[in-house]
Amino acid sequence: MVSGIERPLDLLNQSKGKEVLVQLKGEKQFVGTLLAFDIHINVVLDNAKEMQDGEMKKSIGLTFLRGDTIIFISPASTSRNK
Amino acid sequence: MVSGIERPLDLLNQSKGKEVLVQLKGEKQFVGTLLAFDIHINVVLDNAKEMQDGEMKKSIGLTFLRGDTIIFISPASTSRNK
Amino acid sequence: MVSGIERPLDLLNQSKGKEVLVQLKGEKQFVGTLLAFDIHINVVLDNAKEMQDGEMKKSIGLTFLRGDTIIFISPASTSRNK
Amino acid sequence: MVSGIERPLDLLNQSKGKEVLVQLKGEKQFVGTLLAFDIHINVVLDNAKEMQDGEMKKSIGLTFLRGDTIIFISPASTSRNK
Amino acid sequence: MVSGIERPLDLLNQSKGKEVLVQLKGEKQFVGTLLAFDIHINVVLDNAKEMQDGEMKKSIGLTFLRGDTIIFISPASTSRNK
Amino acid sequence: MVSGIERPLDLLNQSKGKEVLVQLKGEKQFVGTLLAFDIHINVVLDNAKEMQDGEMKKSIGLTFLRGDTIIFISPASTSRNK
Amino acid sequence: MVSGIERPLDLLNQSKGKEVLVQLKGEKQFVGTLLAFDIHINVVLDNAKEMQDGEMKKSIGLTFLRGDTIIFISPASTSRNK
Repeated sequence: MVSGIERPLDLLNQSKGKEVLVQLKGEKQFVGTLLAFDIHINVVLDNAKEMQDGEMKKSIGLTFLRGDTIIFISPASTSRNK
Repeated sequence: MVSGIERPLDLLNQSKGKEVLVQLKGEKQFVGTLLAFDIHINVVLDNAKEMQDGEMKKSIGLTFLRGDTIIFISPASTSRNK
Repeated sequence: MVSGIERPLDLLNQSKGKEVLVQLKGEKQFVGTLLAFDIHINVVLDNAKEMQDGEMKKSIGLTFLRGDTIIFISPASTSRNK
Repeated sequence: MVSGIERPLDLLNQSKGKEVLVQLKGEKQFVGTLLAFDIHINVVLDNAKEMQDGEMKKSIGLTFLRGDTIIFISPASTSRNK
Repeated sequence: MVSGIERPLDLLNQSKGKEVLVQLKGEKQFVGTLLAFDIHINVVLDNAKEMQDGEMKKSIGLTFLRGDTIIFISPASTSRNK
Repeated sequence: MVSGIERPLDLLNQSKGKEVLVQLKGEKQFVGTLLAFDIHINVVLDNAKEMQDGEMKKSIGLTFLRGDTIIFISPASTSRNK
Repeated sequence: MVSGIERPLDLLNQSKGKEVLVQLKGEKQFVGTLLAFDIHINVVLDNAKEMQDGEMKKSIGLTFLRGDTIIFISPASTSRNK
């Protein structure tokens, strides 16, 4: 069990400055360093890369992602392929 | 009849720390330990696994899921295939 | 005419503890005992079963359904195929 | 001109206890007696029947329809095929 | 230039009692006399007709249209095919 | 740089009485004189024309467009094909 | 790490007067100078160009983009193809 997560946004707070995987609707996927988020789950990633099938498709750099299109956000360190 | 469920969120509250199945729009399915949720039904799962046809497709680890994309959440212990 | 239904939620209130049919967007259908609902039409079903073409596809047990994906909810006792 | 309709909900109010046709997104259509509605356009129909191409597909009985999926509601007495 | 239209709803107000064309999402189109509207752009049409390719498909009579599905509303007198 | 645009609605305000191009979801496109708009980005166009591939498909005249379906609004004078 | 970004809108604020890449739902992409934005992520771009596969498809000039259709906004200077 992970300690210190009482509310969903606590995970995003703990992930600030760390690499996260952001899955969008419509199969788009980004990895990047989580710089900021708000209650609408708008996020800013640094060094963002658009991924496809585990490969980098495009380097986007700094980017603002609207929360509305996000399915999940996961700290990259805890994610691994089967 | 199950006791102690007066409002829908009571079920999520009872499921904290337990394994749940989360069905998303667009056929994505996750199983994991429910750590936290809020009134928007944003949830955090620990040891999350993306499932497909009852098989693990990918281990995601800790993950924040936006409520907006969720269809249903079910305690894994009560779910079984036909 | 059915008595005692002044507002739409009155029907859900009368259906508590009874079997209901829940039709979701995207052709998913559930039957189960209605335990709880709220003003967002989030519902909890007990003994939920996912149905397809009138046959049980999967037993889900206790489940939380987000109101956002629901098309209609109907007391099972009043529903019959043609 | 029809008298007594100042606001859109006035038509629904006048239609209480009468048969209405409810068109949903995704081509689903219901006819039934309008028992109740609210400002979200959630409605309860009695003796609801799911229709397809003007034929009854399924008798649903009493049913709660979420306003979110409704395209239009029309008093059945005023509707006729060309 | 048309006078007296300061806000978008002014056009709907000027169109009360007149024939309008209502374009819905998903290619449905209605013509009818605008009886009422509200800030959600819910409208009531009298003598509503569902149109397809400029031909009447079905006479619907009095009908309540949810604003959510509406793309545009146009006074019929100002609309003409090329 | 364009002066006098501090907030997005300033551009719409500057465009009143001028021809604009309105791009809707689902590939519909209108040109017309912007008469009015509100904070929901509902707009009224005069002399509206539905366009397809740069050609006029249909003259709609005065029309009310719901903001919900709008992707972008652009003063026609600043737009040109490549 | 990028300094000065505490909240997601800080990135948009820092990008005012600079070229940004705006990705919309449905694969549309624009580049242009960010003139203004609001909390709905409505934005105004100057010298906007619609892009397709990295090539300019159409010059749109000044344009108002509704936040609702935006997936991400990225300062162009930080973005590069693989």
